[in-house]
Amino acid sequence: MISIGVIGATGYTGSELLRLLAFHPMADVQVVTSESSSGQRVGEHFPGLYRYHDLVFTKLSREKLPELNLFFLCLPHGAAMEWTEKLLDRPTRVIDLSADFRLKSVVQFEKWYEQPHSAPHLCQQAAYGLTEIYREEIHQARLVANPGCYPTSVLLPLIPLLRAKLPIDPQIIVDSKSGVSGAGRNPGMKGQFVVVNENFSAYKAGRAHRHVGEMEEKLNQFSAKPVQLIFTPHLLPVNRGILSTIYLKFKTPVTPNTLHEIFKDAYREDNFIRILPPGELPQLVAVRHSNRCDIGFLCLNNNQNAIIVSCIDNLLKGASGQAIQNMNLLFDLPETTGLPLEGVIS
Amino acid sequence: MISIGVIGATGYTGSELLRLLAFHPMADVQVVTSESSSGQRVGEHFPGLYRYHDLVFTKLSREKLPELNLFFLCLPHGAAMEWTEKLLDRPTRVIDLSADFRLKSVVQFEKWYEQPHSAPHLCQQAAYGLTEIYREEIHQARLVANPGCYPTSVLLPLIPLLRAKLPIDPQIIVDSKSGVSGAGRNPGMKGQFVVVNENFSAYKAGRAHRHVGEMEEKLNQFSAKPVQLIFTPHLLPVNRGILSTIYLKFKTPVTPNTLHEIFKDAYREDNFIRILPPGELPQLVAVRHSNRCDIGFLCLNNNQNAIIVSCIDNLLKGASGQAIQNMNLLFDLPETTGLPLEGVIS
Amino acid sequence: MISIGVIGATGYTGSELLRLLAFHPMADVQVVTSESSSGQRVGEHFPGLYRYHDLVFTKLSREKLPELNLFFLCLPHGAAMEWTEKLLDRPTRVIDLSADFRLKSVVQFEKWYEQPHSAPHLCQQAAYGLTEIYREEIHQARLVANPGCYPTSVLLPLIPLLRAKLPIDPQIIVDSKSGVSGAGRNPGMKGQFVVVNENFSAYKAGRAHRHVGEMEEKLNQFSAKPVQLIFTPHLLPVNRGILSTIYLKFKTPVTPNTLHEIFKDAYREDNFIRILPPGELPQLVAVRHSNRCDIGFLCLNNNQNAIIVSCIDNLLKGASGQAIQNMNLLFDLPETTGLPLEGVIS
Amino acid sequence: MISIGVIGATGYTGSELLRLLAFHPMADVQVVTSESSSGQRVGEHFPGLYRYHDLVFTKLSREKLPELNLFFLCLPHGAAMEWTEKLLDRPTRVIDLSADFRLKSVVQFEKWYEQPHSAPHLCQQAAYGLTEIYREEIHQARLVANPGCYPTSVLLPLIPLLRAKLPIDPQIIVDSKSGVSGAGRNPGMKGQFVVVNENFSAYKAGRAHRHVGEMEEKLNQFSAKPVQLIFTPHLLPVNRGILSTIYLKFKTPVTPNTLHEIFKDAYREDNFIRILPPGELPQLVAVRHSNRCDIGFLCLNNNQNAIIVSCIDNLLKGASGQAIQNMNLLFDLPETTGLPLEGVIS
Repeated sequence: MISIGVIGATGYTGSELLRLLAFHPMADVQVVTSESSSGQRVGEHFPGLYRYHDLVFTKLSREKLPELNLFFLCLPHGAAMEWTEKLLDRPTRVIDLSADFRLKSVVQFEKWYEQPHSAPHLCQQAAYGLTEIYREEIHQARLVANPGCYPTSVLLPLIPLLRAKLPIDPQIIVDSKSGVSGAGRNPGMKGQFVVVNENFSAYKAGRAHRHVGEMEEKLNQFSAKPVQLIFTPHLLPVNRGILSTIYLKFKTPVTPNTLHEIFKDAYREDNFIRILPPGELPQLVAVRHSNRCDIGFLCLNNNQNAIIVSCIDNLLKGASGQAIQNMNLLFDLPETTGLPLEGVIS
Repeated sequence: MISIGVIGATGYTGSELLRLLAFHPMADVQVVTSESSSGQRVGEHFPGLYRYHDLVFTKLSREKLPELNLFFLCLPHGAAMEWTEKLLDRPTRVIDLSADFRLKSVVQFEKWYEQPHSAPHLCQQAAYGLTEIYREEIHQARLVANPGCYPTSVLLPLIPLLRAKLPIDPQIIVDSKSGVSGAGRNPGMKGQFVVVNENFSAYKAGRAHRHVGEMEEKLNQFSAKPVQLIFTPHLLPVNRGILSTIYLKFKTPVTPNTLHEIFKDAYREDNFIRILPPGELPQLVAVRHSNRCDIGFLCLNNNQNAIIVSCIDNLLKGASGQAIQNMNLLFDLPETTGLPLEGVIS
Repeated sequence: MISIGVIGATGYTGSELLRLLAFHPMADVQVVTSESSSGQRVGEHFPGLYRYHDLVFTKLSREKLPELNLFFLCLPHGAAMEWTEKLLDRPTRVIDLSADFRLKSVVQFEKWYEQPHSAPHLCQQAAYGLTEIYREEIHQARLVANPGCYPTSVLLPLIPLLRAKLPIDPQIIVDSKSGVSGAGRNPGMKGQFVVVNENFSAYKAGRAHRHVGEMEEKLNQFSAKPVQLIFTPHLLPVNRGILSTIYLKFKTPVTPNTLHEIFKDAYREDNFIRILPPGELPQLVAVRHSNRCDIGFLCLNNNQNAIIVSCIDNLLKGASGQAIQNMNLLFDLPETTGLPLEGVIS
Repeated sequence: MISIGVIGATGYTGSELLRLLAFHPMADVQVVTSESSSGQRVGEHFPGLYRYHDLVFTKLSREKLPELNLFFLCLPHGAAMEWTEKLLDRPTRVIDLSADFRLKSVVQFEKWYEQPHSAPHLCQQAAYGLTEIYREEIHQARLVANPGCYPTSVLLPLIPLLRAKLPIDPQIIVDSKSGVSGAGRNPGMKGQFVVVNENFSAYKAGRAHRHVGEMEEKLNQFSAKPVQLIFTPHLLPVNRGILSTIYLKFKTPVTPNTLHEIFKDAYREDNFIRILPPGELPQLVAVRHSNRCDIGFLCLNNNQNAIIVSCIDNLLKGASGQAIQNMNLLFDLPETTGLPLEGVIS
């Protein structure tokens, strides 16, 4: 069994982790922390949870933390860097679900997150936890920086195409739509039912969203010429899920078959990536409550353009599911252990 | 492994069965039938499904059906009785998710369903599949009549109280609210998004819904005096879930502690029934995608009245989940095998 | 033109008032106040509003308030009583949308709202603003206490029946379901999209909700024997609307025709009340964005029981719409002036 | 008063027309036709409707149709062309809400709609009913071809920019999201609540949607160089509304002020078009139940790109509302007569 602590367990990613770990045959969650809810039982907050119903939230305290095999950090950006450093003093591993170690470039981090980085040396040690792409680095890492939800939905389809040196125009338009849990569990008017329901809107359009920095850094590891994203996230009135519509322009035509081959090759061994036949586009429902990423595409204008659509559940492949996939990798378990391949029908 | 056929696998209960069986370690689904979609793959209809993605729907044909350990029947009322008889000719077992064998009284069946019963002898042999209550009968049965969704949510809280001979006024008001999948997968205006969304309505109120017959027959097995239900189902703009609000009047006061003791006693061994502390009421989300039934209650008017609230996922404990629970019982597996105890958080 | 001030205009009832008054040919809104948003324009908060887009929210100050024909008070309970007294010092009228003057009995107010009443003399002067029932009192009043949303949906169907001295068992069960805007515009976890969407739950069941006091006081003005409500409100995942399912027991049978006659008689002149034929039940969508209350019913058990279903839009007939209906009455305009009779289709 | 017939009045556009006409001071709806529901009253189908509650649907018959000032045609594509010709035999006017006369080019019509055109001469006579752009043609027309919903949301922002001869790259990416009523009132699995709710998907992506032909024909009237759209419509789980996100590339930089000036100039007199300040983007809720189109934009990459977001209610400005706006124009009424400028708050 893997002894586990979930640090910051009352947010969406923390609680979804608890839910998923309840189905994991090797997970032994021993510690759950919450500053706001310490002393309460998990079941009081999340009556749907069963296995960890009677576990009690504690305050986060370095002294009181037992030695555990693994910590999942579900703290806000900024708080995570500090605690990662403290936790890694001991012989353990950390999967950090915040943004603190996602960027290799500390300069870029400080630009996008508008705060100094207190542990820049760890940025280099951290493996970027996009499992299918960075499997080897993750396997050897003590610290995994779990990717952002939008980046997961955008990088999984784009990296294989860039790696294959397709003649892609470096300006790529990404029009993403995310369910409400993507914005985190912060009470506020913006997330109120009456505000979101029967509504739809774009926010932080263009190059204003922090995930642009994360996506471009990773894409540029696979591209000779720097990629420039134009990225418009939208708020979708559903609980969970991200669908990204990606518009590519080719300098010379690229056939659907070429695209399909590249995708199939790239993810041949990967159970969690499903490539649809050319011309078929995925829908959100099929990945809801699943750790899959479904990718479809079509070519148009005599193969001078392509539209790619990718779908993930932002709380699974986009956060807690991928974190457990990384845990499986770290502890030499089959990658699918305890994780749902099935989406829902309704 | 248990070899399984799912007859009528494109409706909500059939497809949810497939989804759940994908997580079941002993299930080997070999046959899926569909009249309207024969020749297509499961994955074409239900892109979220993964394990049974490439299984092909066949037409239902007695000759072509292989010998299997178990058939789940997800056919419409009326069609099920005929096929059950044919299937039970061979050495197999049948869990029927239609209403055809739920009533012991053929007279009552014919009154509520307005059609003759073609296999009345099987009504007597069938075990009513409300697992926690009829466990022994189910264990020995070849034919299990899986309960209706509303009856499951109403019988689980009421039977223990009647069995305990509490002084309950025989007129019991049940105000139920069901998600849209409860109405089945029939295209039509009534189930259209634009009709249901942002709407709410009662239907078949009073004593018009067929489940009244099923509920009263079972309740009266545990009640000296015949119970009379006043039952109002409502259509809730959610995909899944039933919440029933039940109003009891006592002839002499009954304390919350008495109620709580009776509930705890009745379901002491039952993982899928969660009894909340007196005064706490359950919510739908906590049982969504779980096979649980959560039950809460409060007493009022000097303990002369009680309000009970029960919640289930109509596709799990209210249909396909309970069917698998019954399968586990039939094949001597632990009852929770392959079934989710956890609900969702969002 | 009627010069109008809306005090506390950023909550749901205040902003819906502004929206409705934009369609009113005689309304001249001159003042809108908001403590949290003073200095901002209406259009910044509510981009959907057009006519009052450039009006600026001011802080509430007795000195700075101009003389106006009418004030709508949309302040929290407790704050309203104080400001009502101050405003009525001058020659104006007040329609108070809080609960502060709904109860004639100050003792009952203080019991249900757990605070002393600072202006008990005004409780007697205030007319209870259930327009169809208390038209004469309202017409002569300077202060109108606009009813609660649940009470509007319950009193409109019940008062005519009690007034007709039908042999109704005094214990009446009311099972109500309300959209999320009924809970007010308070940011908090309980109103978050992810918490409410795909969920459903009961709250303050039995006799715990404050509207029980308001409903019983009004019902008992029309009943020889005190009525006792058992009232369970539920939170419905829709923006707006209340559907109440009311269960009556008769000591001697009452026919559907009798009920229908009483309802038709009671509301013969009332455009905003629609009585459905016996056996037909209303749905929420038909009254959404309308100031109507739709009432349907059926009898059962040889006319010994009846089920009544009523529907309103909680922001219109349940709050701001009825407030404008009362304004029309106060200023001798036709009651339907500027108010929508039409509901929506989608 | 304008005597009116609504032909095909049970679909979404027909019934929304009825709803809106109920608020119109000059509308006198005398005839409503429906093939499937002839003999029924309007109120049976649409219990929310009040003013036309007792009007009876008739079958469409040339002989029985009285002489009326105006017919709104809400028939399916193909059926409308035939009936338009018949109706225009008499002295009346027709506003056709189908696609049959939207394209001036009969060749293009027959290509996109895959059927011959039976009344090609009328294509030339028909005025394209995008009111703000084609006001003069509409004013003089007997036949108005009311625009498609997607085209309305795309043409209103793009035409002023093309007319101003901005250096726009002719390949324009349009990522649109539409509520479910946009797909029409056809029962079928695709529109079922359980299929749409908590789901999101793209359809007919690239150049497959018929509205591409309509949009390009109109855009090219204002563009020296042919525009080529890449257009991805998505199905949004809301009842109504379209939000289009439009991506422009400029050959030489264009400042936000230039864009803002062009928009403000273009729509200076137009009450139904609201231009937001540079950098602010509109949301769907603000135009719901309003006849407005809200347009926002931002520039990026040193003003070499722009993102424009437009919002309409697909049933109002995108269909029935604009049809009434055109009626007002045809009958010399102020364009806003009877039409809501206000959107909703919730």
